[in-house]
Amino acid sequence: MNSLEFARQHTEQFIARRRDLHKHPEPGWLEYRTAAFAATVLTELGYDIKAGAEVLDLDARMGLPSEAVMKAAMERAIAEGADPKWVDIFGYGKTALVATMKFSDDGPTVAFRSDIDSNDVQESDSPEHMPAREGFSSIHEKAMHACGHDVHLTMILGLAEYLATNKDKLQGTVKLIIQPAEEGVRGAAAMEAAGVVDDVDIFFGTHIGIDKNLAGCLACSDPGFLATSKIDASFQGYSAHAGASPEQAKNAMLAACTAVINLQAIARHSKGISRVNVGTLEAGTGRNVTPDVASLKLEIRGETTEINDYMEQRCHTILEAAAAMHDCTVNITKAGSAPVVMNSDTLATEVQELANELGIFKRVDFSYSGGGSEDCAYFTRRVIELGGQATYMILGSDIKAPHHNPLFDIDEKDMIHGVALMGALAEKYLQSK
Amino acid sequence: MNSLEFARQHTEQFIARRRDLHKHPEPGWLEYRTAAFAATVLTELGYDIKAGAEVLDLDARMGLPSEAVMKAAMERAIAEGADPKWVDIFGYGKTALVATMKFSDDGPTVAFRSDIDSNDVQESDSPEHMPAREGFSSIHEKAMHACGHDVHLTMILGLAEYLATNKDKLQGTVKLIIQPAEEGVRGAAAMEAAGVVDDVDIFFGTHIGIDKNLAGCLACSDPGFLATSKIDASFQGYSAHAGASPEQAKNAMLAACTAVINLQAIARHSKGISRVNVGTLEAGTGRNVTPDVASLKLEIRGETTEINDYMEQRCHTILEAAAAMHDCTVNITKAGSAPVVMNSDTLATEVQELANELGIFKRVDFSYSGGGSEDCAYFTRRVIELGGQATYMILGSDIKAPHHNPLFDIDEKDMIHGVALMGALAEKYLQSK
Amino acid sequence: MNSLEFARQHTEQFIARRRDLHKHPEPGWLEYRTAAFAATVLTELGYDIKAGAEVLDLDARMGLPSEAVMKAAMERAIAEGADPKWVDIFGYGKTALVATMKFSDDGPTVAFRSDIDSNDVQESDSPEHMPAREGFSSIHEKAMHACGHDVHLTMILGLAEYLATNKDKLQGTVKLIIQPAEEGVRGAAAMEAAGVVDDVDIFFGTHIGIDKNLAGCLACSDPGFLATSKIDASFQGYSAHAGASPEQAKNAMLAACTAVINLQAIARHSKGISRVNVGTLEAGTGRNVTPDVASLKLEIRGETTEINDYMEQRCHTILEAAAAMHDCTVNITKAGSAPVVMNSDTLATEVQELANELGIFKRVDFSYSGGGSEDCAYFTRRVIELGGQATYMILGSDIKAPHHNPLFDIDEKDMIHGVALMGALAEKYLQSK
Amino acid sequence: MNSLEFARQHTEQFIARRRDLHKHPEPGWLEYRTAAFAATVLTELGYDIKAGAEVLDLDARMGLPSEAVMKAAMERAIAEGADPKWVDIFGYGKTALVATMKFSDDGPTVAFRSDIDSNDVQESDSPEHMPAREGFSSIHEKAMHACGHDVHLTMILGLAEYLATNKDKLQGTVKLIIQPAEEGVRGAAAMEAAGVVDDVDIFFGTHIGIDKNLAGCLACSDPGFLATSKIDASFQGYSAHAGASPEQAKNAMLAACTAVINLQAIARHSKGISRVNVGTLEAGTGRNVTPDVASLKLEIRGETTEINDYMEQRCHTILEAAAAMHDCTVNITKAGSAPVVMNSDTLATEVQELANELGIFKRVDFSYSGGGSEDCAYFTRRVIELGGQATYMILGSDIKAPHHNPLFDIDEKDMIHGVALMGALAEKYLQSK
Repeated sequence: MNSLEFARQHTEQFIARRRDLHKHPEPGWLEYRTAAFAATVLTELGYDIKAGAEVLDLDARMGLPSEAVMKAAMERAIAEGADPKWVDIFGYGKTALVATMKFSDDGPTVAFRSDIDSNDVQESDSPEHMPAREGFSSIHEKAMHACGHDVHLTMILGLAEYLATNKDKLQGTVKLIIQPAEEGVRGAAAMEAAGVVDDVDIFFGTHIGIDKNLAGCLACSDPGFLATSKIDASFQGYSAHAGASPEQAKNAMLAACTAVINLQAIARHSKGISRVNVGTLEAGTGRNVTPDVASLKLEIRGETTEINDYMEQRCHTILEAAAAMHDCTVNITKAGSAPVVMNSDTLATEVQELANELGIFKRVDFSYSGGGSEDCAYFTRRVIELGGQATYMILGSDIKAPHHNPLFDIDEKDMIHGVALMGALAEKYLQSK
Repeated sequence: MNSLEFARQHTEQFIARRRDLHKHPEPGWLEYRTAAFAATVLTELGYDIKAGAEVLDLDARMGLPSEAVMKAAMERAIAEGADPKWVDIFGYGKTALVATMKFSDDGPTVAFRSDIDSNDVQESDSPEHMPAREGFSSIHEKAMHACGHDVHLTMILGLAEYLATNKDKLQGTVKLIIQPAEEGVRGAAAMEAAGVVDDVDIFFGTHIGIDKNLAGCLACSDPGFLATSKIDASFQGYSAHAGASPEQAKNAMLAACTAVINLQAIARHSKGISRVNVGTLEAGTGRNVTPDVASLKLEIRGETTEINDYMEQRCHTILEAAAAMHDCTVNITKAGSAPVVMNSDTLATEVQELANELGIFKRVDFSYSGGGSEDCAYFTRRVIELGGQATYMILGSDIKAPHHNPLFDIDEKDMIHGVALMGALAEKYLQSK
Repeated sequence: MNSLEFARQHTEQFIARRRDLHKHPEPGWLEYRTAAFAATVLTELGYDIKAGAEVLDLDARMGLPSEAVMKAAMERAIAEGADPKWVDIFGYGKTALVATMKFSDDGPTVAFRSDIDSNDVQESDSPEHMPAREGFSSIHEKAMHACGHDVHLTMILGLAEYLATNKDKLQGTVKLIIQPAEEGVRGAAAMEAAGVVDDVDIFFGTHIGIDKNLAGCLACSDPGFLATSKIDASFQGYSAHAGASPEQAKNAMLAACTAVINLQAIARHSKGISRVNVGTLEAGTGRNVTPDVASLKLEIRGETTEINDYMEQRCHTILEAAAAMHDCTVNITKAGSAPVVMNSDTLATEVQELANELGIFKRVDFSYSGGGSEDCAYFTRRVIELGGQATYMILGSDIKAPHHNPLFDIDEKDMIHGVALMGALAEKYLQSK
Repeated sequence: MNSLEFARQHTEQFIARRRDLHKHPEPGWLEYRTAAFAATVLTELGYDIKAGAEVLDLDARMGLPSEAVMKAAMERAIAEGADPKWVDIFGYGKTALVATMKFSDDGPTVAFRSDIDSNDVQESDSPEHMPAREGFSSIHEKAMHACGHDVHLTMILGLAEYLATNKDKLQGTVKLIIQPAEEGVRGAAAMEAAGVVDDVDIFFGTHIGIDKNLAGCLACSDPGFLATSKIDASFQGYSAHAGASPEQAKNAMLAACTAVINLQAIARHSKGISRVNVGTLEAGTGRNVTPDVASLKLEIRGETTEINDYMEQRCHTILEAAAAMHDCTVNITKAGSAPVVMNSDTLATEVQELANELGIFKRVDFSYSGGGSEDCAYFTRRVIELGGQATYMILGSDIKAPHHNPLFDIDEKDMIHGVALMGALAEKYLQSK
């Protein structure tokens, strides 16, 4: 039974798992139930598990929620059936997991990566939305799997089972990398810094969906992801009575507003695409008090890491000068980051050939230019830097709305194609060198 | 028994009432328990009561809370002992009350005014704070009588009892005007528009505290209050993915930030004091989405109504142009306003003389320049326009912290002086013309 | 004698002519001496001349100098030897010229285009600068041929003589289009609107220099030129004494500064390169007077005409809103514009082949990406829209400094290659279809 | 013959002198002909003259013109009749003069001050303008006595002659202080720093005109002048090609524009009047080059020196932060300054009394609130600090247009009143103590 036949036979299991995950979405660094589920399944399948602090450089984590938020999410996970032993290991922002199965001492190490976190989106309850109609939409307020990470984990677990079933036919080692907090590009850097891909020869990242026009197709070796940095800045000034002593103000709102306009005005870069967006701004405490606080969340992107660095350096300069201009201080923190997604041309070409052989895709493109960012980039860059090969694949699907939209949904049948492809890729490369 | 003797005898009652009011602070338009308490007391004392829609031009109310907030506050008031009959009358933002007692057909109409609402401040629980130490600090989250309006109502009710007790000695009519929503200058305009001072010959407004240096003193005929307008503006744009289609954005945050800086840059006025403050700004929904919404709360002030009008006209122009600049729309609403407090010189002089005669004040000043605003200004202006006399008095007190501060407190003994003064003023003017 | 031999024989003439033009640079719309010289030479060679209003849509001219400036330039041209008859025809901003020679009734019409204007640059008098050393640097204050248009005209005149000499061997018609005011992209639109390329089957534009790395090379079919618009905006407000009556100000400087920052902050376009630059800003009249005037010169660019249109529309919105914000008016005029340079692939390929056959270029590239703009784009677009073929060629040269630099210079020997190439191209296409 | 009779007899002389000065206006630090004329007259009258570097702290001069401009003005002065000996002494920005006459060893030192510079205004040639009609309007391009300093000097010279004529009747010492560069408040500080008023017991400053409503009146002890500082700022960035390498820009225009808006947005001061005005801004060199330079001229004012200092400190902070924000540098220089004009109440009262006794003024006011600034403030402050008395008097006149207007003119007859008043004041105080 090849991977396609295996995947077809397991369709019901895939759908059931995906729907359970979809119903219990957990935002980045809070994926306690999700990670515990993966750990349980993979342990049962005979994988070696490294989890939590074993696979994370804790200092390299970005954009962690508050302790209180993490604690509440841990308690909820247990209340919703998570194994407390695993929640303890993953607890307080350590929801990372690497499952390894060594088939032989001599072969290559092949890695597949899945992200697992959800979005801060209130899922639609419209009857046109299939998860609502079928009763598996999110039961968590303002959380939704609106980017398909529920599907990613389901596929990785399907792949895990297929490989475990066929372990006698394989050589080398498979590594399943289950990464927290991809939204906001906050999680991969800490796993990469912990060395989880340092021994990987062949690396595959996958994303479902992206563009309706890719439905039924596969795109690989994607150059369209931009490097990005996510930055939080909070200005601290001094509040004064707006009528009685305005001259005593150190006006944090003026600092923030001056920063916002000048950030947006950072000069375009001649070497390629650049982006800047101040997404949120909150300032002040009351109408008749001069604003002593202002905080903003922004992101920058660049077609190259050099461009992204240029944008980031300009951001810092502008934020600091805006604070100085109004006698305020500013605290700047990096809330996430990703370099450009690198791809190995040879590997991508081989993926294409194999995909064409499988005969399950309407079209196999060499690349698709998207415009988003993806912290899987840390893994692909590291693997390639150390002499391995890596590629990032987009598994097209007939998405019902754009990613991050309350009506986002994919075609569940595409999970079959994903598992079939990944299974075949594993079989191709898990042989003695 | 003169008014001073009466006030001294009733000190315990004053303190008990003030502390009960202090413990149950209610923000503007939500003073259901407070107003019901006043209505009950004044009814018992034999006053004619006009309440709610009878004494409010409902369309002239500014800065009303949402229906849901009002409903919750009504339910809480009843739960905390308010008479449901009165809550029904005052319900949904109609917490205004005029209590009248006619002593004779021929004499003048003399009015005293009290405001009753609390501030959006979390009261201190520090042991240095007397209300905390004595156990009567606010039991309502983020609400506190931090401006002394609990004291104002207590004094007016004390005055009411003194006058009712002495009604046979008086001529003319006394009017006790109990006004909601002074904070944010939202309430007086609607009472004035309903005509509640149209028949008033002599009008007195009073405020306790203001400045520690006035402790034990009286200041009247104050020219230091500024005209003001409170303005809310909300920008509506269009959100786009910050990485994939930034050019589709209609960036409401850029509109708001451009407005904020230019508002602050409105040219000073050569004719006197002007002020502008954007107190709060909230914009955007997420880091990687271009901001489609932004809202700001601002206020302007002017030494004269002309200057305030100049500032207001400039505000509108700037807000609208900032929206247009970024292809957004903007909705501008007036959330409060007050003209300059006018005073009748003759009346103020007579108040001084009487205050000096009473011998209870350390000092009696002709004026004190503050810098705040006060919507009692609507009443004083209307009375003077119609040929009456009006003045606004500051009853100094040894305040423990600035107004609106979590540690704000007054010296309760000053209530005695307040009732004594108001009682004596009533006696002086409530005689046949 | 083929075109290469012809060009080599005429090297001294080319150098003499180029140096005379270089010594007498004339900015856009002021090329009276230059155009008169071209007209005189081409008339002598037997070309039919159409000039001035015959080949310009006068209303489509952009960025004309003032009458006074034009009059002075006309007088100077005559003083420097221009034929007054031609100056009269070209006078007051009509310095356009089309020279035609019909070889037969049946063949194709092949056009070559040259621009002729100089830059607003003060030429270097450094001995390292060859024109200074050789005594032919500009004798006109703040004017210099710092972009090679002196070379362009010299080559076109050399080509004209070669074709006239060989007219018996040719069929069809050659059109030499001599265009004013390319700097600031102000002149081509008016010639195009007058229909000068409506009958052209094959069109060639040429530029010398561009990049030192192209020395000795040829690049054609260039996609690197951006569409552009040049915009002037002048704000009119109202001035007041800054100390005595600031509130009466309608502050044009504030309007302009708000515009500048927001212009720079126009959102990047996801479809390709965009640019914006406010190059100059002048505002105000005196330190103690509120500024009633402000004027700015800006330009925008786009990788596509769609992007350029997006930028231009945003510019107008921002400029108008900035004026409205400060109760000013704004007058916006287009001072220049160019679409994207279109190229015919087939023609470009044929040019490459011919260039390679000639054996005079170190390298022949298919394209070179520059980043500037060029109003020759009007001609290439029109020719292609009407079914003809067009290409724009870059004739590399060992430039001594970037274009528009006081030290800019080219290698005069490259004129030989230019005339040889254009002569060969003319011979190739000027045959019966 | 008293001072009034003297002044009436000398009316023709006053008018002739004033018209000659009016016809030859000289801007600040360039008053070579004017100062030479004064020096010549005063020498002839027997005064001791200290001039140039003797009465200036050269380092304390502000806002000096360039050497070239000063040299040209010196040459013009000589061409227009100035004594070269004096031009040499006053040359290159040393146009200050103190003329002293000691009547006795024991009496007080009484000082009168005149300024002498003209405005950068093109005088009207309208027949409604008396100087034009009578043929004595300015013969210097863009220079005009549009503030009455020609009148001031004429009156001081008239006073000088009156006192010289009556020297036997006087005791003590008279000091005539002739100050350059009052426009832009640039000159007084350097004379004060040189100690010219350190020995003065009684000091009088005078200005003609100010307000049409003061025609025929006298106002003294004026509190209406504001402290002020004049500031020049020039930003230096780095220019890049706007299309080819915008990211290399260090955009001085963006720095300047950000500064301008934030300067205008400096919070109002609760203690009194504040002002800020950026009067001129120039930025950039060409449309397609990112701006590497920007310069602005601004002024601030304050009702008190404390407020002016607050404004100045905020200016510096904003200018420096704006430069830092765009990686530019900024050079900030003080181009002028004046504190608040101090007045001695006793002296002012005595002036009033004397003025009333003279019977030549329609009205004598104690003060008039203007709104401008005046560097005579340095002298009045210094005299009062050292224990003397000082006052600043406004000599009303029927002015034909506001000061600094091309149509400004005064009523020449008012010079009679000025000399009469100053003469009488001198006589009153120049007696033994």
